Amino acid sequence: MSSNGKLHIIPLGGLGEIGKNMTVIRYGSDILVVDCGLKFPEDELLGIDIVIPDISYLKENREMVRGIVLTHGHEDHIGALPYVLKELNVPVYGTQLTLGLLKQKLTEHEMPEVELRTVSFKEELRLGCFKVEFFRVSHSIPDSVGIAIHSPIGMIVHTGDFKIDQTPIDGEVMDFHRLAEFGNQGVLVLLSDSTNAERPGFTLSERVVGETFDNTFRKASGRIIIATFASNIHRLQQAIKAAERYGRQVAVVGRSVENVVRIAEELGYIKLPPGLLVDIGDISRYPPERLVILTTGSQGEPMSALTRMAMGDHRWVEVMPGDTVVISALPIPGNEKMVARTIDLLFKLGAEVIYEAMLGIHVSGHASQEELKLILNLVKPKYFIPIHGEYRHLIKHARIAQCTGIPQQNVFVAENGQILEFTRKGAAAANGRVTSGRVLVDGLGVGDVGNIVLRDRKQLSEDGIMIVVVTINKETGAVLAGPDIVSRGFVYVRESEHLMEEARERVRQALDKGEGQGVTEWAAIKNSVRDALGKFLFERTRRRPMIIPIVMEL
Amino acid sequence: MSSNGKLHIIPLGGLGEIGKNMTVIRYGSDILVVDCGLKFPEDELLGIDIVIPDISYLKENREMVRGIVLTHGHEDHIGALPYVLKELNVPVYGTQLTLGLLKQKLTEHEMPEVELRTVSFKEELRLGCFKVEFFRVSHSIPDSVGIAIHSPIGMIVHTGDFKIDQTPIDGEVMDFHRLAEFGNQGVLVLLSDSTNAERPGFTLSERVVGETFDNTFRKASGRIIIATFASNIHRLQQAIKAAERYGRQVAVVGRSVENVVRIAEELGYIKLPPGLLVDIGDISRYPPERLVILTTGSQGEPMSALTRMAMGDHRWVEVMPGDTVVISALPIPGNEKMVARTIDLLFKLGAEVIYEAMLGIHVSGHASQEELKLILNLVKPKYFIPIHGEYRHLIKHARIAQCTGIPQQNVFVAENGQILEFTRKGAAAANGRVTSGRVLVDGLGVGDVGNIVLRDRKQLSEDGIMIVVVTINKETGAVLAGPDIVSRGFVYVRESEHLMEEARERVRQALDKGEGQGVTEWAAIKNSVRDALGKFLFERTRRRPMIIPIVMEL
Repeated sequence: MSSNGKLHIIPLGGLGEIGKNMTVIRYGSDILVVDCGLKFPEDELLGIDIVIPDISYLKENREMVRGIVLTHGHEDHIGALPYVLKELNVPVYGTQLTLGLLKQKLTEHEMPEVELRTVSFKEELRLGCFKVEFFRVSHSIPDSVGIAIHSPIGMIVHTGDFKIDQTPIDGEVMDFHRLAEFGNQGVLVLLSDSTNAERPGFTLSERVVGETFDNTFRKASGRIIIATFASNIHRLQQAIKAAERYGRQVAVVGRSVENVVRIAEELGYIKLPPGLLVDIGDISRYPPERLVILTTGSQGEPMSALTRMAMGDHRWVEVMPGDTVVISALPIPGNEKMVARTIDLLFKLGAEVIYEAMLGIHVSGHASQEELKLILNLVKPKYFIPIHGEYRHLIKHARIAQCTGIPQQNVFVAENGQILEFTRKGAAAANGRVTSGRVLVDGLGVGDVGNIVLRDRKQLSEDGIMIVVVTINKETGAVLAGPDIVSRGFVYVRESEHLMEEARERVRQALDKGEGQGVTEWAAIKNSVRDALGKFLFERTRRRPMIIPIVMEL
Repeated sequence: MSSNGKLHIIPLGGLGEIGKNMTVIRYGSDILVVDCGLKFPEDELLGIDIVIPDISYLKENREMVRGIVLTHGHEDHIGALPYVLKELNVPVYGTQLTLGLLKQKLTEHEMPEVELRTVSFKEELRLGCFKVEFFRVSHSIPDSVGIAIHSPIGMIVHTGDFKIDQTPIDGEVMDFHRLAEFGNQGVLVLLSDSTNAERPGFTLSERVVGETFDNTFRKASGRIIIATFASNIHRLQQAIKAAERYGRQVAVVGRSVENVVRIAEELGYIKLPPGLLVDIGDISRYPPERLVILTTGSQGEPMSALTRMAMGDHRWVEVMPGDTVVISALPIPGNEKMVARTIDLLFKLGAEVIYEAMLGIHVSGHASQEELKLILNLVKPKYFIPIHGEYRHLIKHARIAQCTGIPQQNVFVAENGQILEFTRKGAAAANGRVTSGRVLVDGLGVGDVGNIVLRDRKQLSEDGIMIVVVTINKETGAVLAGPDIVSRGFVYVRESEHLMEEARERVRQALDKGEGQGVTEWAAIKNSVRDALGKFLFERTRRRPMIIPIVMEL
């Protein structure tokens, strides 16, 4: 599809979902990509590790792609890059910390050759016909930016993920002035973060958590163990400051948080007073009231450090009465039960646990309704596209935009793959669509698990499998060996011998019947075994295991 | 274990978990059981339908069991009865509605012969050495009671599930007076509902939801569809009243809510103005602004009416722009994503959706901290056992009890199966334990799925299965047919032919090696195939499918 004279904005991810954020912006033969994130799989994606966007459209137009521009260093914005960059050799632009975190990730994937270009604020990038500049936003990771893109027919403002923190930890307030200038110059279209569009009011400042830490540190008489998102560097900084204030040493444990602290310190995003950090292997040398342990596992992830501690299975840290564990995070939807289990286990070990039910132990990184309105009023866009959210979030954000005076027909609640077309005359959702969707990553396989495999895994997970093997004479169809039956995940076989013997009998009957009727076609024999056995098992157990008849010919 | 002169309180379920509530009370050779509930399975219980308590202890002492006393008609208090009553022939006591709902359930299980005895308030039951009376509590189902049990060594008060609703819909306030009398007479031990022990303050009155309904009805111009818990009869009553007030007909759809409305009307727990109810098949005869549809699916359950409507797959109701859908419930932990998906789909169909984020659309049926304190202060028990809750809820409730002045050593945070022993001299957790735990129900199977089957289902669900079949000569060990490989849930085979061919080759090598070394033992051949293939597949895919080698001898 040609786009001469037309500006196309095409979301490839992040609409109607939380995660795998990716937006394509095209004018003529220049394509610019904003973000390239992953998503963690929904429960029904059995066995899947991560989900990344389908980039067929970019591969089809690979010679037009001028670069990928990143808003910040979270997984849902950079996590698909190791996979996408294997297919697309383009430069990646971002702020210093964002690229620092990406570099670590690329190293782990053994991809050192990618071209990474650090962009500073006020610097103007030229990518094809686009002029691109970053503006500072507040978010739950430092060095987060929104992106202003000057296209031949008008300016596009993309907020990335953001909140408005009037008292940020690093003192770097969101760049309202630049947004106000954009608004005065005239903005064609605004794309803005919808994650918290359901929440009225304002999101609290990160500083609130610091006050809670302070209260906690004042009261705690033993060790303090704080679990939070590894990338929340401001949160880590606040914990470190509190430790310093209350005369405690800090040990960091958990691969991701160790990496982040190292990178953030190297790049100057975290301040570590000399001598404060101690090795996790040395913690027994310090009295409990002189220690803080910073760690991961705030989502109850099975292999994380905090979960291991809760299960009494951590190499260095044994949780005990007197310990105070602070879970400085809210459970991401879907993780509620895992987090609750961790809390219960920690309580059972005798620790005091401070968690979500307590106010001020966590604040969101995303803007609530009043912040969203402020941005809309500052930027005064002609058109508006809510991004980053499930459908209900986008709808709520669209309504908020209409409240601020943007006419309904200028607000686009879009889907991944839709082409939103802007010209000097107007804007509309184009009729066509580009290929979009999800690519499933399972182990080393990228895209080799699809609906058929998932459907099979689901059936296997619910009722198990029953395998029937029989060897027959190729000429006569006579049974030479078997039928043998093997089952897994269906019933505990030792206690169900009678059922299994009956099942074998049904198979024999089905085979006999086939033989009598001269059925020696594999497919027919298999179907008849599958039907007879399936019916029998359902009657007896109300379960539908997968039935795999295997016929060997001799 | 003898318990002469001793009172034993033994929780068989509901401690350290939400659901399968069941408490055993024993004095000498008299056993009384309070409630007999089910639990819905955790995610890791793949394929399991429901979980019920292990009643080995009751079966071992079946001649002592005087009866099962029910506090109310929710599944987590009565849902295990159809299974338990098959093993234990004892009378069941409860209020009229509770037994009405149980009767329906027993009819579905074709168990009409169970002895059900309706108990009224102020009636005194004699069960062995126990005198038992019911006292009224507020909860999210009518006819809920707490139970006072007079034992030879003192009174036991069991709250059941409760909240304190000062303005209940049916005007029947919790029986504070009786509780105050108990407190004055002296209560040995209180067992109290801990579900909401994390929540400060008071739980809102059910009446609040009526006000929200009123606002919603006033604004809605099209149909109103309300989904709530089928058993929340007061909620249904409020919806019906609002419908009447605003001149709308009511259609009820969904098997469970249809059953509840029928039973509640028969027994007089719901008032239906004549002519208000219309058949769901007739709704097209009424203009949208004259209709309310009451339905199920507030938890996003896959087969429920609301979920079907959201998926455009319901026989009678097609959701359309103009419809207002009210989801009058909070997602139970674990259901958040399913509920969110339903909301998104309803928005996509153009409906207005009113859901959890809006205040006043749902209130809890369980007491918050201030209510728990009030009960503790009224009842003034010597000993306290927090029940009905995960471990952290029990801990919080224990702390609340200590705040009201009960000494720490008189508060027992117990586990299922623990024996709490009370004598005239004191109380303690006994050293012994009774058998307790979970029994898994899968289809018609009760207890035939255990850890081995679940472990297999888990492996199958994550990486699928690979079956290797080979026919060998029994005498020589020579391969006569195969190896054939069949996989399911592992990779999409058509796109992985090369991998499968290589896998077959590895199996051949393993077989050859075995043959050369004279290995004709099945077990050895199987192990060698499993090892070789497992190693190969992990190297190539980082997945660990279940590998089932099947050797047929001829």
